Amino acid sequence: MLITFEGLDFCGKSTQIKLLKDYLENKKQKTVLLIREPGGTNISEKVRELLLDKKNKEMFIETELLLFSASRAQLVRQIIIPEIRKGNFVLSDRFHDSSIAYQGYGRGLKVSTVKDIQSFAIGDALPSVTFFIDIPIEEFIERRDHRKGSSLDRIENSDIEFYQKVREGYLKLCNEEERFVLINGINQIEEVHNEIISYLNQKIFETEK
Amino acid sequence: MLITFEGLDFCGKSTQIKLLKDYLENKKQKTVLLIREPGGTNISEKVRELLLDKKNKEMFIETELLLFSASRAQLVRQIIIPEIRKGNFVLSDRFHDSSIAYQGYGRGLKVSTVKDIQSFAIGDALPSVTFFIDIPIEEFIERRDHRKGSSLDRIENSDIEFYQKVREGYLKLCNEEERFVLINGINQIEEVHNEIISYLNQKIFETEK
Repeated sequence: MLITFEGLDFCGKSTQIKLLKDYLENKKQKTVLLIREPGGTNISEKVRELLLDKKNKEMFIETELLLFSASRAQLVRQIIIPEIRKGNFVLSDRFHDSSIAYQGYGRGLKVSTVKDIQSFAIGDALPSVTFFIDIPIEEFIERRDHRKGSSLDRIENSDIEFYQKVREGYLKLCNEEERFVLINGINQIEEVHNEIISYLNQKIFETEK
Repeated sequence: MLITFEGLDFCGKSTQIKLLKDYLENKKQKTVLLIREPGGTNISEKVRELLLDKKNKEMFIETELLLFSASRAQLVRQIIIPEIRKGNFVLSDRFHDSSIAYQGYGRGLKVSTVKDIQSFAIGDALPSVTFFIDIPIEEFIERRDHRKGSSLDRIENSDIEFYQKVREGYLKLCNEEERFVLINGINQIEEVHNEIISYLNQKIFETEK
């Protein structure tokens, strides 16, 4: 089973994914693979280098989307699908919905095209559940400034607008896609974790039996 | 104006593209940029390395298509479109139709999806004319064996079938797309060249005036 975590940076995804990994391993006695995108295979890691290299400032948004998708296509077929076939859990910190939210809704690429490219890239590896850990933009700015030690007024308006669009994109996906679960990321870590595991136990693991 | 050349390997594309470059530069006094895919920008060249590296045997066909498309998306926006805007000619030895013919028709990826991804990758840079230099499969095998010094019976059937599918794909594109021009690649080099320039002079350059 593939479970993905989505949300703006600093929403608490990474913390929650680790807590869920521990829970599944200890309480459910399951093998759990944690995935970080882009990367995870030799080829995907080389694509990651290209994507993250600060020298590549001339990279167009279309190129970026296709490189993310290439890295994902390889990861899906080389790692994720074989792992799922073994009956193991795969938890991914961001997956194809990040491309839809960031490059589609955020950067303004045509959303239906971005979705089509993602369907092609992930093939049969559609997540069973996607947790969208939602925080309001104000909270995002506060956490980012706190982390970066910069002040609120240094943030450009266009930047805020971008993250607003990304968040709105995620909220649309929550309405459109049944696999999306909206989680309030403002709550305490333990509270969020309990919400996630109770959702899984009630809606996913129960129906599997 | 963007003019592309397509066809099986050994069909004579490279020879014809050089002859056309000379013709356009000398007889038409135009600046002509020759393009080789994948590559042509710093980012595209790094993607090319990934695509051509023999160590990457585990690369899936979907990854390959997305990497070719990423390289192309960058080349189009960074080089081809600015060059066309300057009023210059761009001649490309293979372009997006190669992905449709090879990965779509040849390798069996869904052709409509491959076409959609190519439309996204090339954006506004649809070629004005695409010359498909056609040679029969028997001729392809003969030229390849001659070049490689190997004998005909060493070629696997599956391999021949693949090139047959690619050729049939190109022939379908010739029927479907008005910009496609079918050229008989069996003819002498000078004859093929004359066919190309007379097509351009009659159908393309004349209507431009």
